Amino acid sequence: MANIKAVVEYDGTGYSGFQRQSSLPTIQGELEAALGKLLEERTKITAAGRTDAGVHALGQVVNFRTARAMPAERIPAAVNRLLPRQIVVKSAQRVADDFDARRLAKARRYQYTIVNRDEPSALVGRFAYHTGDRLDVAAMRRAAQWLVGEYDFAAFQAAGSPSSTTVRRVTALRVGRLGDIVVVAIEADAFLYQMARIMVAALLAVGRGELAPVEVRRIRDARDRKRIGSPAPPYGLCLVRVMY
Amino acid sequence: MANIKAVVEYDGTGYSGFQRQSSLPTIQGELEAALGKLLEERTKITAAGRTDAGVHALGQVVNFRTARAMPAERIPAAVNRLLPRQIVVKSAQRVADDFDARRLAKARRYQYTIVNRDEPSALVGRFAYHTGDRLDVAAMRRAAQWLVGEYDFAAFQAAGSPSSTTVRRVTALRVGRLGDIVVVAIEADAFLYQMARIMVAALLAVGRGELAPVEVRRIRDARDRKRIGSPAPPYGLCLVRVMY
Repeated sequence: MANIKAVVEYDGTGYSGFQRQSSLPTIQGELEAALGKLLEERTKITAAGRTDAGVHALGQVVNFRTARAMPAERIPAAVNRLLPRQIVVKSAQRVADDFDARRLAKARRYQYTIVNRDEPSALVGRFAYHTGDRLDVAAMRRAAQWLVGEYDFAAFQAAGSPSSTTVRRVTALRVGRLGDIVVVAIEADAFLYQMARIMVAALLAVGRGELAPVEVRRIRDARDRKRIGSPAPPYGLCLVRVMY
Repeated sequence: MANIKAVVEYDGTGYSGFQRQSSLPTIQGELEAALGKLLEERTKITAAGRTDAGVHALGQVVNFRTARAMPAERIPAAVNRLLPRQIVVKSAQRVADDFDARRLAKARRYQYTIVNRDEPSALVGRFAYHTGDRLDVAAMRRAAQWLVGEYDFAAFQAAGSPSSTTVRRVTALRVGRLGDIVVVAIEADAFLYQMARIMVAALLAVGRGELAPVEVRRIRDARDRKRIGSPAPPYGLCLVRVMY
């Protein structure tokens, strides 16, 4: 059996998230169906990040095992012909038997895109959250510093999450503006359920002046999920890269 | 009657171009219908660039006249509620009576986006042309220099064009690469029919090594449309800005 690592890009609009569900369209479901057809065997994939419904990816990483002798380099072009155009396998390579896309990932990088002007965007609206409230990026940066480091991020986890520990290490959290576009880039060893979107919701509250930057530190320390409202909408979020 | 200038962004996918057609969906048709409903009067708009079917815009400029007293600043939010989300009026302002979006435009800037890697892009595929042939951007730049200036661009005009003269002034033609993305930016006083897409087709042929850069100069001087193949596909093209 060959162990194959693949990098996958997808437009999550219209999919019920990454993880396979019996009767709903999912990224995993589409990938396993297309790979199964190509390789003529039942294929089960493991992914670095189980993205929520509507979340996109530029660099999701998966692995799967196959008994077929097809060279890994030929898989992307062949499987892309069987996939909907919203899902593209960018590259594939044979890796060591013990490679596991999920357990061996050292860090994940997400990007959250915000259109910050009066009217929404016709072009990037599919991949960005729109708000007409002028965001104070300097305040968002001051708040972001309280979220970088190894902490118990229980305040930034959706209810009903199965994780045994809520300690995670955030290695970078940057906020930048380019004209009307505000981008939040978050890198961590791993993410709690909806953690990226809840962090963005906190930063949006700071950017709107509803929350003082230092409050983010207090919320973190109090581990109080209730202080931050709903997670930011999924369609602004994109899994950019996974590091091993 | 107030004369209103508006900046419009649109995703041209699925539209039969800008210009109104009786039974096909067009950007002009949608805009006139929504403005007509909002202003409760028949509205006729004039646009700086009559983009082809499938071409997008970040900064199309239009103008129209209205007898209604509604402040121009209130039009975008109000009309966007009546428009499909693929079309957004970004701003509107009252302008002098003699302002004409088409006749007074001094220059138009278009951008053509190319995904240049083995596999297509799931995220930007809607707004970019994909080619797996590795493009030689340095050669494309050498070719581009022959297209900057005031010339008879008859070689870069689609057949059956109605223009009385084929002389145009191209003020900038830049080719850049950022990783897998190659962008061609073209600025001219005005464009012949399909001129931007035919220029990109010529530059693509150069980038693939099918045409020597200097050949572009010979084609220009010979005014020989037949030397360049089909125009590059419309969905990679975007009207970025109009200057007055």
